Amino acid sequence: MKELTVIKVGGKVIDDPEALKRFLDSFVEVSGAKILVHGGGKIASDFGNRLGITPQLINGRRITDKPTLELVTMVYGGLVNKNIVAQLQERGENAIGLTGADANVISANKRQVSAIDYGYVGDVSRTDVNTAMISNFIDAGLVPVLCPLTHDGNGNLLNTNADTIASVLATAMTEKFRVNLIYCFEQDGVLEDFAKNKVIATITYDQYDKLKTEGVIQAGMIPKMDNAFDAIKGGVDTVKIGSFQSVQTLVKGKSGTKITLS
Amino acid sequence: MKELTVIKVGGKVIDDPEALKRFLDSFVEVSGAKILVHGGGKIASDFGNRLGITPQLINGRRITDKPTLELVTMVYGGLVNKNIVAQLQERGENAIGLTGADANVISANKRQVSAIDYGYVGDVSRTDVNTAMISNFIDAGLVPVLCPLTHDGNGNLLNTNADTIASVLATAMTEKFRVNLIYCFEQDGVLEDFAKNKVIATITYDQYDKLKTEGVIQAGMIPKMDNAFDAIKGGVDTVKIGSFQSVQTLVKGKSGTKITLS
Repeated sequence: MKELTVIKVGGKVIDDPEALKRFLDSFVEVSGAKILVHGGGKIASDFGNRLGITPQLINGRRITDKPTLELVTMVYGGLVNKNIVAQLQERGENAIGLTGADANVISANKRQVSAIDYGYVGDVSRTDVNTAMISNFIDAGLVPVLCPLTHDGNGNLLNTNADTIASVLATAMTEKFRVNLIYCFEQDGVLEDFAKNKVIATITYDQYDKLKTEGVIQAGMIPKMDNAFDAIKGGVDTVKIGSFQSVQTLVKGKSGTKITLS
Repeated sequence: MKELTVIKVGGKVIDDPEALKRFLDSFVEVSGAKILVHGGGKIASDFGNRLGITPQLINGRRITDKPTLELVTMVYGGLVNKNIVAQLQERGENAIGLTGADANVISANKRQVSAIDYGYVGDVSRTDVNTAMISNFIDAGLVPVLCPLTHDGNGNLLNTNADTIASVLATAMTEKFRVNLIYCFEQDGVLEDFAKNKVIATITYDQYDKLKTEGVIQAGMIPKMDNAFDAIKGGVDTVKIGSFQSVQTLVKGKSGTKITLS
């Protein structure tokens, strides 16, 4: 089975043009078939402020109302995605920018209204991924670059978490490839001591559960870790978390944190 | 040779959500391989106003400075393009939204600075079109949806006239297809009497030249007509101009204006 590397890069890297350039330099060094999934970053909030679109929060959860959907469609699907594509083309990488609507690569279910109406938010599972079409792109020598937008098939784009897209996509692609999933961000890996920047080389689910209980792993790291473990459970070969500055050493397992079930 | 229909739809249709829906209903009725090229519309100016990005004009010509490029990347490449794609998916059409940078489908030359520096504007010719990649998409059952952005291969997106993209693309695709080019807009065709909405059924280059001299054809119609004649000269099988509400009757030659060399 051929190998495929799915690389997710986070919002803070996207926000900083110089960091993004360093990441892309590092991304092109990764050999073989690959897919890039990028987050949104706070550029959307910045443009939202300038446009007078105020973030809607209910119980601390962000709501994607219609103006916010338009905003993220412009920023994630347009500005961020197309600039990454143009900069990858500059580096000789034949990138193609996609939302889930493009070529119907990732459909989603609009999140059901329960206690909270999250608005235009899409939930995805592995069966929502059009693995045949994505394989077709890879076979054509293309590098898909996915932004955190999906669609419901009823004409609506949907805001979808980029970490989840990466996990679900990597899992679905195990049908056709031996898949490695890499979460890149501004830390060197999962830290057991934030102050000392001490990276955990390998983490099992039990260790994760313990560190979560102890409050060592917290906040935004929790959904990221859950997505990472979901991918391993779903048949992804390796999952690693580490620095955006050295993607290739992460792929080779020479840096960052490796996720294992036990 | 297989047939391919390249359809360009103008900005005023894009600006009106109901008109856009009617156009897309009409677009999906067109059978066979097809490509949609869309213009920008004044949505970009509206968002520009809200963002405090003022249009730069030199001698009446619009300049694409860096903030304007960001604006059109968001609006053309994000908001407009992705909403068209999502709405085509809703109609069962497997659309894929593209800038010229995506899969390197259309590269361009950044316009040379002469008396005027137009900024991030790209000029395209038929050799800039990646006909192999576009054919690959068509063979995969996809409907490419192109927005008026290209790239220079040096990491820069470039603002490019949508009428010109349609003409150059149609011409280049004659390598592999018998190509029909359709310019759709809010008029029923090229008018010889605007007040009476009297459509010219067929127009030759000499007739065009005469009507231009007489001032019957003027302003924005002139570059559109020049692009239409360029396509015919370049080997495109048929070129028609007419209403966005009846694309299929335009394709069939039952409405609008047909462009012929003589």
